Amino acid sequence: MKIARFSHDSRIAYGILDEGDLVVLAADPMYGGLDTTGERVPLADAVLLAPVIPRSKVIGMSRGYYLSESEKEDQEGGLDRRLEPQFFLKPNTTVVGPNDRVVLPAASTDVHGEAEIAIVIGKIAKNVAVEDAESKIFGYTVANDLTAVDLLKSDDHSARAKSFDGFCPLGPVIETEFDMEGVEVSGSVNGELVQSGDTALLRHSAAETVAFLSRCFTLLPGDVILTGGLGRSFPVRDGDRATVTVEGIGSLSNPVIRLG
Amino acid sequence: MKIARFSHDSRIAYGILDEGDLVVLAADPMYGGLDTTGERVPLADAVLLAPVIPRSKVIGMSRGYYLSESEKEDQEGGLDRRLEPQFFLKPNTTVVGPNDRVVLPAASTDVHGEAEIAIVIGKIAKNVAVEDAESKIFGYTVANDLTAVDLLKSDDHSARAKSFDGFCPLGPVIETEFDMEGVEVSGSVNGELVQSGDTALLRHSAAETVAFLSRCFTLLPGDVILTGGLGRSFPVRDGDRATVTVEGIGSLSNPVIRLG
Repeated sequence: MKIARFSHDSRIAYGILDEGDLVVLAADPMYGGLDTTGERVPLADAVLLAPVIPRSKVIGMSRGYYLSESEKEDQEGGLDRRLEPQFFLKPNTTVVGPNDRVVLPAASTDVHGEAEIAIVIGKIAKNVAVEDAESKIFGYTVANDLTAVDLLKSDDHSARAKSFDGFCPLGPVIETEFDMEGVEVSGSVNGELVQSGDTALLRHSAAETVAFLSRCFTLLPGDVILTGGLGRSFPVRDGDRATVTVEGIGSLSNPVIRLG
Repeated sequence: MKIARFSHDSRIAYGILDEGDLVVLAADPMYGGLDTTGERVPLADAVLLAPVIPRSKVIGMSRGYYLSESEKEDQEGGLDRRLEPQFFLKPNTTVVGPNDRVVLPAASTDVHGEAEIAIVIGKIAKNVAVEDAESKIFGYTVANDLTAVDLLKSDDHSARAKSFDGFCPLGPVIETEFDMEGVEVSGSVNGELVQSGDTALLRHSAAETVAFLSRCFTLLPGDVILTGGLGRSFPVRDGDRATVTVEGIGSLSNPVIRLG
């Protein structure tokens, strides 16, 4: 099931995608379940918004993927100590939706995007076991994890480089039936492919990641976990259109501009 | 004016401190102004809570103070390039109130506290000038910025070390008339002084910090900025009581425990 958040006729609602229509939901599905009002809005008449408003956390996994098949074999075979999940935080003010513009910050001259799968939390999770972690996931969406690469190098912390307004486009929909295994993920700029791969080299499963994070903090409905980029990030510049596609969920596209 | 958030008779409200009473406010003062209901609750009958629930960001400044008078003179005299403000993020799930317990996480064996002044944002702030930044501040409270020092060293990012549930005690009140200049700040453990100093060596004023951060992201009412620790942090261990005091605001005290 694909769920979108959308605006239509000056109101904002959630809806389930069904044959070119959005079947309107009675409430925010992260809190109020999946009851529908019966109303249908043609998808073509709706403006899709970021499908989730995180009330608490956007977590970004770094080194989410092995760099090569041989690194994966070494670590999973126990030759190296397996790396614990590594993460940073992005404030919820970074979140924008499909087609929202990404404004390049004055403080940076080198902003990169990354094509990523994002986990959307559906239930409160604290100290959950790996085998129970799937039940805390509401669904999955597409993310472009933007970074001011120059500030990542010059600052003490990764926080500023990851935190500018607009640095976390999410959308177009949340897919509630999704398996991260063997999925194609790609990024393109102005229609040219700049990042692509599949999830075969993912370092930790979604369940392992959720279980690990829940030992650090309480995960809340609407929290978002960016699962990390495959290979290299790609530069984005004034006038570009950056598009991220995840097989089975959809494409998320945003114009990039520099003001002033 | 000192404002507290409190529970009393199974409801939660805000109140203004007035001669041993809390004069109840009609709404969350960050959103609904300072109208009172006329009701008074004796402070002794109320349980004080964290005075603010951040909806978006808890920002922690690092290197918030010069280490010495001579470092301050060199940088402010322009001999060295003045350091830009450096910050990390803590999720809002770290926030607890006065007397709430701080649970030491299983992943760390070396947790430290830091006595800090916290800025509470009252108005939306984006790209504000230094001279307009004061008007965006609602008030100031006391914070204990807890860190898993061992994870700060071993992880790629500072995020996990700063983010465990309970790692941001705030309170007891928000003081709306407060000037950070020349204020005494201290930390103690089990009644023994472990950190103390005054704000003479503060690297950036509250207005400079708010203006800088507002060029990175939109600051929202209820966002909290921890302004950094003076000198060295102090270890906290199972069974300790950690107390942070800021002259003119009050004392914030929390028991520290390890479970299991």
